[in-house]
Amino acid sequence: MIRTFQIEAVDRTLEQQLHHQINNKTKPIGALGKLENIALKIGLIQQTLKPQILHPTMLIFAADHGIVAEGVSPYPQEVTWQMVMNFVNGGAAINIFAKQNGWKIEIIDAGVNTRFSQSLPIHHVKINFGTKNFLHEPAMTETELKKAIETGEEFINFHQKEGSNCVAFGEMGIGNTSAAAVIMSRILNLPIEDCAGRGTGLDDGGLRRKIEVLQQAILKHETTNPQSILQTFGGFEIAMMVGAMLAAAEQKMLMIIDGFIVTSALLVAHAMYPQVLDYCIFAHQSDENGHQKMLSYLNADPLLKLDMRLGEGTGAALALPLVQASVNFLNDMASFESAGVSS
Amino acid sequence: MIRTFQIEAVDRTLEQQLHHQINNKTKPIGALGKLENIALKIGLIQQTLKPQILHPTMLIFAADHGIVAEGVSPYPQEVTWQMVMNFVNGGAAINIFAKQNGWKIEIIDAGVNTRFSQSLPIHHVKINFGTKNFLHEPAMTETELKKAIETGEEFINFHQKEGSNCVAFGEMGIGNTSAAAVIMSRILNLPIEDCAGRGTGLDDGGLRRKIEVLQQAILKHETTNPQSILQTFGGFEIAMMVGAMLAAAEQKMLMIIDGFIVTSALLVAHAMYPQVLDYCIFAHQSDENGHQKMLSYLNADPLLKLDMRLGEGTGAALALPLVQASVNFLNDMASFESAGVSS
Repeated sequence: MIRTFQIEAVDRTLEQQLHHQINNKTKPIGALGKLENIALKIGLIQQTLKPQILHPTMLIFAADHGIVAEGVSPYPQEVTWQMVMNFVNGGAAINIFAKQNGWKIEIIDAGVNTRFSQSLPIHHVKINFGTKNFLHEPAMTETELKKAIETGEEFINFHQKEGSNCVAFGEMGIGNTSAAAVIMSRILNLPIEDCAGRGTGLDDGGLRRKIEVLQQAILKHETTNPQSILQTFGGFEIAMMVGAMLAAAEQKMLMIIDGFIVTSALLVAHAMYPQVLDYCIFAHQSDENGHQKMLSYLNADPLLKLDMRLGEGTGAALALPLVQASVNFLNDMASFESAGVSS
Repeated sequence: MIRTFQIEAVDRTLEQQLHHQINNKTKPIGALGKLENIALKIGLIQQTLKPQILHPTMLIFAADHGIVAEGVSPYPQEVTWQMVMNFVNGGAAINIFAKQNGWKIEIIDAGVNTRFSQSLPIHHVKINFGTKNFLHEPAMTETELKKAIETGEEFINFHQKEGSNCVAFGEMGIGNTSAAAVIMSRILNLPIEDCAGRGTGLDDGGLRRKIEVLQQAILKHETTNPQSILQTFGGFEIAMMVGAMLAAAEQKMLMIIDGFIVTSALLVAHAMYPQVLDYCIFAHQSDENGHQKMLSYLNADPLLKLDMRLGEGTGAALALPLVQASVNFLNDMASFESAGVSS
């Protein structure tokens, strides 16, 4: 029922030329480390020796989760809409970092359990007032899943037409580390203890309770198909991100990935279309338990490890200057020849 | 003979207030990880709840080293002046990253083995045309050391008066990983094998030769006093950085430290005045063998680990947006109260 995406593996024809260009810059071979890998990757994605980052866009998807009824978060559900209002008013961490580093922010109500005033600068594409409690029933219907995926796609298509070639994803949703942990557990086939973490700050007892609840939910729903896992346990924000990621890979846009929740969406997208990884740079390894295992599974080597665990897309927002630096050195550094330096 | 510096440990009176401010931002406690530590540190250095980064200035010291006569580098000595010209012409990695992130660059001839045209935008403060070969004699005289330290100081005093409160250090000098490795070996009392690395790209044989040469030099000069170590093995760029670091700490300026050579200068400054560390943020852990041990010795936790090993101050240049993000979240993020978010 979800449409087929045309996601191509990156064409590596330019690889040798890009290597040559990188190695002839005025520096010892390999001395720019990870920035050299990033420069190569972006050159291949954009199929050019002169890549550019154009109109970087941060799509922030917010939604609520029925599973919070089971006490899996130390914060009440109302914090989701309150934080969306904080995004609107420019007071959240993601606002500060996005403004500093030149991201355009789009705030998207994917399924928050409140009615926002229509006049607010929010994209009102709510699928429902939060998901169902997946301890008892699937989080969303098949129709809701399809709608969420398509909505995520539409945001990418819009921004691609507007000239953006680089996107990142942020999220807000009390309870969404629970959804992400179960998705991870099912897709990586790992015990839920290896996947669930303290989220916004559960204590030991809270974490035990969360793990018990999620274990029960996993036993209740037997499913191994990625779409079905997403429908059963996912949030509307996660499903929209999956749609956005598949569309972005289809459009050959660069994606800067960070965070436990965002990476859980990528696990689903990757399970459906492994080539999606060709378009991803990894921004930050979260301090949330489980994120490192997700990254290892995806063979991902993030740029940053700042012990953050905030979500919102903050890691991606902070990583942009490093991505920009990779592009800039490739374009603007002198070569040994042009600078007259002995090599 | 080197003057006494008045370096005070940071006054921690504001620590509780800064913690309170950080913890009341709209995020889980501790969720911004290392950025929270940086925000606290800068607040204490500047003695304010509203810190600012003003006119960040990158001082790039270049000099030549007599020890290159022993074949310790795969590049010829002329690369030092050629790279200085590359800095002047804006083609080096440090130019690209500094321009991107808002650093002012100052190019300083501390002791390059060439005559630069006086009309070039270089600070002509050459102590000598390179150091002596420390395999045979001390790298510099006591008078040269004193002059280098004082010159480093003068740059800091000038930029402090011009309104800068944040400095970083870059360097260029073929052979200077040899000088830095010996300084490290003497100050940390570690075998030279644990300190010397491949520099700009020595192969296994080259590295063995470098270690042999440096071991001979260490056996020749018995000294444990930090000033004497600096005079015997240091470069003019390293000595100027020591002077600059001591002056910056005296002036309570923030220093962003990166790189194997720059950190070797900090080892000397720290051995003389341990409080200098209160004014340092660590930018990047170099891929050069030994740098991690230096950082452990200083109990330093760098912001970045990008597998770079270029020097020039590139790690510090790249870290500035993260330092700025720390200051920005402290100043501009909403509190739970101001945003009306349940805490």
